[in-house]
Amino acid sequence: MTINQTESINPTPEQLNAIDAYWRAANYLSVGQMYLRDNPLLREPLKPEHIKAMLLGHWGTTPGQNFIYAHLNRLIQTHDLNMIYLSGPGHGGPALVANTYLEGTYSEVYSTITQDEAGLKKLFTQFSFPGGIPSHVSPECPGSIHEGGELGYSLSHAFGAVFDNPDLIAACVVGDGEAETGPLATAWHSNKFLNPVTDGVVLPILHLNGYKIANPTVLARISHEELQQLFYGYGWIPYFVEGDDPTAMHQAMATALEEIILTIKTIQHKARVEGETSRPRWPMLVLRSPKGWTGPKEVNGLMIAGTFRAHQVPITDPATNPAHLAQLENWLKSYRPDELFDERGRLRPELQALAPQGPRRMGANPHANGGLLLKDLLLPDFRDYAVPVTSPGAVNESDTMILGKFLRDGIRLNESQRNFRIFGPDETLSNKLNAVFEATNRQWEGDQLLTDEFLASDGRVMEMLSEHQCEGWLEGYLLTGRHGLFNSYEAFIHIVDSMFNQHAKWLKVTREIPWRRKIASLNYLLASHVWRQDHNGFTHQDPGFIDLVVNKKAEVVRVYLPPDANCLLSVMDHCLRSRHYVNVVIAGKHPAPQWLDMQSAIMHCSRGIGIWTWASNDINDEPDVVMACAGDVPTLETLAAVSILRRSLPDLKIRVVNVVDLMRLQSSTEHPHGLDDTAFDLLFTENKPVIFAFHGYPWLIHRLTYKRTNHRNIHVRGYKEEGTITTPFDMTVLNELDRYHLVQDVIDRLPQLRNRMAYLKQEMQDKLIAHRQYINTYGQDMPEVRNWTWENR
Amino acid sequence: MTINQTESINPTPEQLNAIDAYWRAANYLSVGQMYLRDNPLLREPLKPEHIKAMLLGHWGTTPGQNFIYAHLNRLIQTHDLNMIYLSGPGHGGPALVANTYLEGTYSEVYSTITQDEAGLKKLFTQFSFPGGIPSHVSPECPGSIHEGGELGYSLSHAFGAVFDNPDLIAACVVGDGEAETGPLATAWHSNKFLNPVTDGVVLPILHLNGYKIANPTVLARISHEELQQLFYGYGWIPYFVEGDDPTAMHQAMATALEEIILTIKTIQHKARVEGETSRPRWPMLVLRSPKGWTGPKEVNGLMIAGTFRAHQVPITDPATNPAHLAQLENWLKSYRPDELFDERGRLRPELQALAPQGPRRMGANPHANGGLLLKDLLLPDFRDYAVPVTSPGAVNESDTMILGKFLRDGIRLNESQRNFRIFGPDETLSNKLNAVFEATNRQWEGDQLLTDEFLASDGRVMEMLSEHQCEGWLEGYLLTGRHGLFNSYEAFIHIVDSMFNQHAKWLKVTREIPWRRKIASLNYLLASHVWRQDHNGFTHQDPGFIDLVVNKKAEVVRVYLPPDANCLLSVMDHCLRSRHYVNVVIAGKHPAPQWLDMQSAIMHCSRGIGIWTWASNDINDEPDVVMACAGDVPTLETLAAVSILRRSLPDLKIRVVNVVDLMRLQSSTEHPHGLDDTAFDLLFTENKPVIFAFHGYPWLIHRLTYKRTNHRNIHVRGYKEEGTITTPFDMTVLNELDRYHLVQDVIDRLPQLRNRMAYLKQEMQDKLIAHRQYINTYGQDMPEVRNWTWENR
Repeated sequence: MTINQTESINPTPEQLNAIDAYWRAANYLSVGQMYLRDNPLLREPLKPEHIKAMLLGHWGTTPGQNFIYAHLNRLIQTHDLNMIYLSGPGHGGPALVANTYLEGTYSEVYSTITQDEAGLKKLFTQFSFPGGIPSHVSPECPGSIHEGGELGYSLSHAFGAVFDNPDLIAACVVGDGEAETGPLATAWHSNKFLNPVTDGVVLPILHLNGYKIANPTVLARISHEELQQLFYGYGWIPYFVEGDDPTAMHQAMATALEEIILTIKTIQHKARVEGETSRPRWPMLVLRSPKGWTGPKEVNGLMIAGTFRAHQVPITDPATNPAHLAQLENWLKSYRPDELFDERGRLRPELQALAPQGPRRMGANPHANGGLLLKDLLLPDFRDYAVPVTSPGAVNESDTMILGKFLRDGIRLNESQRNFRIFGPDETLSNKLNAVFEATNRQWEGDQLLTDEFLASDGRVMEMLSEHQCEGWLEGYLLTGRHGLFNSYEAFIHIVDSMFNQHAKWLKVTREIPWRRKIASLNYLLASHVWRQDHNGFTHQDPGFIDLVVNKKAEVVRVYLPPDANCLLSVMDHCLRSRHYVNVVIAGKHPAPQWLDMQSAIMHCSRGIGIWTWASNDINDEPDVVMACAGDVPTLETLAAVSILRRSLPDLKIRVVNVVDLMRLQSSTEHPHGLDDTAFDLLFTENKPVIFAFHGYPWLIHRLTYKRTNHRNIHVRGYKEEGTITTPFDMTVLNELDRYHLVQDVIDRLPQLRNRMAYLKQEMQDKLIAHRQYINTYGQDMPEVRNWTWENR
Repeated sequence: MTINQTESINPTPEQLNAIDAYWRAANYLSVGQMYLRDNPLLREPLKPEHIKAMLLGHWGTTPGQNFIYAHLNRLIQTHDLNMIYLSGPGHGGPALVANTYLEGTYSEVYSTITQDEAGLKKLFTQFSFPGGIPSHVSPECPGSIHEGGELGYSLSHAFGAVFDNPDLIAACVVGDGEAETGPLATAWHSNKFLNPVTDGVVLPILHLNGYKIANPTVLARISHEELQQLFYGYGWIPYFVEGDDPTAMHQAMATALEEIILTIKTIQHKARVEGETSRPRWPMLVLRSPKGWTGPKEVNGLMIAGTFRAHQVPITDPATNPAHLAQLENWLKSYRPDELFDERGRLRPELQALAPQGPRRMGANPHANGGLLLKDLLLPDFRDYAVPVTSPGAVNESDTMILGKFLRDGIRLNESQRNFRIFGPDETLSNKLNAVFEATNRQWEGDQLLTDEFLASDGRVMEMLSEHQCEGWLEGYLLTGRHGLFNSYEAFIHIVDSMFNQHAKWLKVTREIPWRRKIASLNYLLASHVWRQDHNGFTHQDPGFIDLVVNKKAEVVRVYLPPDANCLLSVMDHCLRSRHYVNVVIAGKHPAPQWLDMQSAIMHCSRGIGIWTWASNDINDEPDVVMACAGDVPTLETLAAVSILRRSLPDLKIRVVNVVDLMRLQSSTEHPHGLDDTAFDLLFTENKPVIFAFHGYPWLIHRLTYKRTNHRNIHVRGYKEEGTITTPFDMTVLNELDRYHLVQDVIDRLPQLRNRMAYLKQEMQDKLIAHRQYINTYGQDMPEVRNWTWENR
């Protein structure tokens, strides 16, 4: 987009007539997809056998979206815009399929869906049909980066798409149903985070068609004045296009879009050329048009168009009810298909000319197939950030603090590529990634005060107190071919459970679509985890996100629990380079013992699981017991327990197994990272007790290992929903994951020890009592716990 | 509240001075909680040993909330208001503890925290201390129905609290951080759902203290004009109180609150006496005051008060740094404790008199301990709604459609009690609870059109397209002692995963607090489930909510999968009568075979699990195979498989076990509903193959049963993240849960059949091929599947 071109180009009546014809063509194809399996151009009278057996789809939103798409096509053409289209009401799938077909993209991607009568027949039949395509704007639909199945995220995705794409405009249709969701309601504030110089533009189009499935919508039933105030208050300039007469609406829409594009260009010119720095008031459009516009007005005596009854399929029984068959035929013919398609069934050339060309077509814009644009992230050598660990446990460091330095330099390396951002709900400092602010700031277009820190109009860190926004922005950023990281408190990542679900589904489906290119992984760094909530307590304790994650397809999910900083560096380097996964990394932020030097950390993380020989004394022998651990705090407690056991029972052969890559526990037949049974048995033995200290809910380990030979002997300790404001060690005691419980677990599971070691069990119980007394008196952990260090034997 | 009293009562300067003293007292107690373990009244010079070992808590929001609380106290007193207080920024726990202590509630509830110096010492020491109380406005704090640990839900909870409480005002402090969350951003629209005649009032107090943890807040950095427009647009009248000079602020606050209460009374008078029916514009307050107001201005050369650095503990090392110790002492003394507390350490009587009396105190208001007000829900006899089932499978019905009739009459029975509501995100009709609209409407205060259906200004159904709102409203409604049901699509209940987490935690903790009374259970009805997404496809398929639910404490969670309408009736009757649980009920909405007559359904549901003898042929014998099922679709496929097996292998002894109450599968040592091992073994045998067709992700069954004797032989089929728009039966095929796969599973697991039954396996594979061909041609399931019925043998 050339930002100095500031004249609006209003269409002639003839041009508007042509747009109307294009709109009718898209509407015709949309109704065809919902109803027809044959006779796609109505070249013969419509008969029951031309009708699909099951009638599926959502008509209500479709004509409005066709209207928008047709007008955006004109805008792209006349102003040579680089624009993508996001459909918030993604159940309007027929509209997007119709339009990408009309513009030619669809046939380029799916060669059997040709631009003729045979292709039309296939196009119609495949819609919402087994073996065909889904009803939403799914990954199968070219030009889509937003399926719109679960509502609420369109605007956040749109903003994510235009960050660092100064040339791009994301037209984002927001349904008035979707506008009621929480995530969407706060997404309007994204304009406080958009830099007019270095980012592109989001053009929100609020589509007020008045009804959801069965209810009116809130925004359609407040006064015009309130609606206007609401969007002024959100920081936008709303333009209104309202009505139902097509001729008047075409004129109004064209005029409004011209004014909008003029406003956008003026803002960009001011910011980019004149150096204006105050936050601009971007334009948006409110389109108020009837639900099911141009469709049947009445069926069976009930009003349809303009009511909630237009939501799905307006005429439900044309195959069995001749009157309804006739009504459907009239409806289809009202679009005058003969004027729109030639003899062969191809859109007439004068209408074809209305669509943009090549990659300017919204269905073919490469930003909507982000893998096409993806450049490798430049990363420094993570070994350079290694914590020197002369012997295990010799130093204490904050794992995330170390990671922050690596990320800082990653930010620097990609400064000119501008393709890496860190997202977080006001927790980047709290999660101890402080070092990143040596290299960048938080992007913030609101007012600034002298008391602020690390704010700038251009920065690599995006912080808004909305996990939904962080997730939505990041997804949009990744889907358009960039890289990123979401850092969050562990407990509150559940706020975006459903968004993770949807993104994982998107990845699963796009993996299987040949023309979709792989995108960068969605990386979560979950710090401030369950075991350290000294300030916040029970509400901030929930390690269950991984339970949700492992429900998704093994091909797209990865879970890592690095036990120390060097492992975290190795894991994060791997995650940031990976493609098309969701990587969940859980790490501590408080200073804690460091176990592995960098060389060992790399080997350990590349294996993902392994015996820590330096902590074990079963070398070249079968162990008596396996002490397994996953997560930083469980690792610490396990080693402390091992220490006690080795002191009291030097002959006991203990093997320490640490798990970084959780999916190694699963079978190789279930997950690509899974160990085969032989390898698993070599680590965990076939019959020895395994005491497993786990970061999360204990049953997850059982779920992952239930098929293993030695499963019956695996005893897992983990978080069992006990906690409050208390000391770090007490958190482990409350959940019986602490060293003293682990030692008792070992004694209980080794018959040869039970009697002999009764004294040690008693000692452990005494320790627990002493601990309780001490913390209740002093409010902190006993010195022997606070100051405990691993001694190399 | 008498609604004809409309004169404002402005305080005198002396009264404002007294309020200031009360505020200082609360601030003093707040700082004391964060810092002191001894010398609570500074009767001797402050020494390091008086300081707590770990300094925890959030100062930033606290003085502002103390300010609000003191002024609300005055308002309650002068206008005799029935008011509760919700703290959105719940990490301001010290404020609420201080205020409920000052008003006397705290000592009534916790008799050791006396109103004297000794009590003060305990009050200070216990805060954020092991064995003491959490840092948030947790369940331990009297007057709290909202902990404010996870941000976003305060306003929704407040609205839930005032529905059907026409006399109640819920003052709801919304932090400007919380205001950035999605759920909060849409909660402002709750005013379109509040009936001014039959509901109470929410008074939102947006507390603009400018900063979150480390960032400025969005709403604090937009212009006054934008902020005003935003709230006008949301439908409110914002009153502004802004500044930092206490004297001026006290005057401004008192004046604003007087105007607000006048406005509220005028609105109520118009609606209740004059019959005004248009949606009122309710007042709200914007309080702009410095973060950490009255606290240290500077520490170590860095500005604190009024900046993000005031968020937690402003002076971090008074025990070791003498200068900081002095600064802390000065800070504490700046509140002039000697003027506030008498010799014994008791708040001076003239200040005590500022607090309301008895249940008018916000800490003692019974609405904030809802169980005190809870009345039993009146329910019709669910047996009266029984589907007549002459033989299993003889009739087809929509399970939720039947349930709708029961709910309809439940609504009627509680019409005068006004203590039951149904919540849903525009899905009550879609989920087929249509019958409820014979008895009531959706409550809707927006404009209405002739094309609308089932809307009224007063109704029992609350529908907004926001799962967050539905959940938050319902929680607020339950927490204040009423009953309700949330109906949702199964996949999208994940949107409120984190809200469920927090509510389950609330229930867990309140169970253990003697003065907290039990409340009605939170009931979810999840329809439109994973197996039937004919219209919507993959994005609408996710049965993982139960995986999340079972992570929470066994004492508070229940999961039911009724296989037919009579079971659904029995289960829902039980859930609606229960207390202090989260009940998840998953049910089908499409017409489906009905298996049990009401008598059998009651017996089956009261056992929760059982052998369906009519489908089994292992009577008085050990079976060769157990066919287990949970969920309506898995039950259907299991019975269809059994039917095939019994036809082809009449000698094979098959036992059919159906599971309604999922927690029966868990051990009795893990869950109160769990079967003991003997009972489990009697059902599932100790060594026979079990083919388990499950509604959800298959590994959940393994997780629940991994300790059972026969676990190794349990083979589970369930949803494994395969699906799209397709036919109902094809959904089961894609996930290998269909009858043909189940039959093959049986053959594969019985060595004696493997060779003999190769032909049957081949037949099953042929069926699957035929199925694929048929649906790809006709877009619907083969007649033999569609028309399949169980034949009683």
